[in-house]
Amino acid sequence: MGVRVRDLAPDDRALVREALIHCGAFTDEEVRVALDMVEAGLAGDYSLLAVETDGDLRGYACFGRAHLTVSSWYLYWICIHPQAQGLGLGRMLQERVEDRVRKLGGDRLILETSGRPDYERARRFYREAGFVEVGRIPEFYRPGDDCLVCCKVLSAGDG
Amino acid sequence: MGVRVRDLAPDDRALVREALIHCGAFTDEEVRVALDMVEAGLAGDYSLLAVETDGDLRGYACFGRAHLTVSSWYLYWICIHPQAQGLGLGRMLQERVEDRVRKLGGDRLILETSGRPDYERARRFYREAGFVEVGRIPEFYRPGDDCLVCCKVLSAGDG
Repeated sequence: MGVRVRDLAPDDRALVREALIHCGAFTDEEVRVALDMVEAGLAGDYSLLAVETDGDLRGYACFGRAHLTVSSWYLYWICIHPQAQGLGLGRMLQERVEDRVRKLGGDRLILETSGRPDYERARRFYREAGFVEVGRIPEFYRPGDDCLVCCKVLSAGDG
Repeated sequence: MGVRVRDLAPDDRALVREALIHCGAFTDEEVRVALDMVEAGLAGDYSLLAVETDGDLRGYACFGRAHLTVSSWYLYWICIHPQAQGLGLGRMLQERVEDRVRKLGGDRLILETSGRPDYERARRFYREAGFVEVGRIPEFYRPGDDCLVCCKVLSAGDG
């Protein structure tokens, strides 16, 4: 299996959309917001990385510098197509995001995720990557659905 | 003293800019981002309220619905001109923001502020308004400058 991480390109739009819809983690509104951010990213507002196997796009990540900070970045989305989950592509993408952030002068990565039981897999993914929960906004998304704020300090020796 | 809270208007731009620059709390970059958000707000992306005394603009607030949530809102900026501080205008503005958010279907307000010692006055303002610290991102803004995440649940009986 030839795996490659590269910058996302305008031609990837359709496959990104398919991955978002079929990965099962996102509501219609979340897919719409994610696609809006892909457009904004292609226009230069966010950074976008794609992962492909044997030339086929399998997932992507969207991240960007946090305004008004010296060196904090947000990781907004990581999405892997359901047919390509379990292969370690998400981990590879997350590590390459961290490399890119470091290269651009960032030294910490912040993300927000849901406290719902069905997000446990995502939370474990981030915990194992070294993210630490630094906040919890009660019922942020909707009743019973907290927002967890997680942070990872990117030491120079990582990656 | 005739005090009035009203929607911010395009003609208020210059006085908003003056209030931001002279209130002393904001860096050049913060003023620029705040003004960008005023422009976006005037274009409909955020909500903006102004407070005036005897017809003169004295401060403003910028707030908006949190994407991907049912009823959470962010309070992005409250700024009172230094010559008008200590008169309770900030409190009045914050309460009117809460009224507006409730009217638009919101039931909680989230804000981020600095953990720096010179922000203690701002933090006290929010604590006294009923905001509770729900997170702290270490060194988010810069070394030694944490981000505090604060939340207030807007009960129907408030205001």
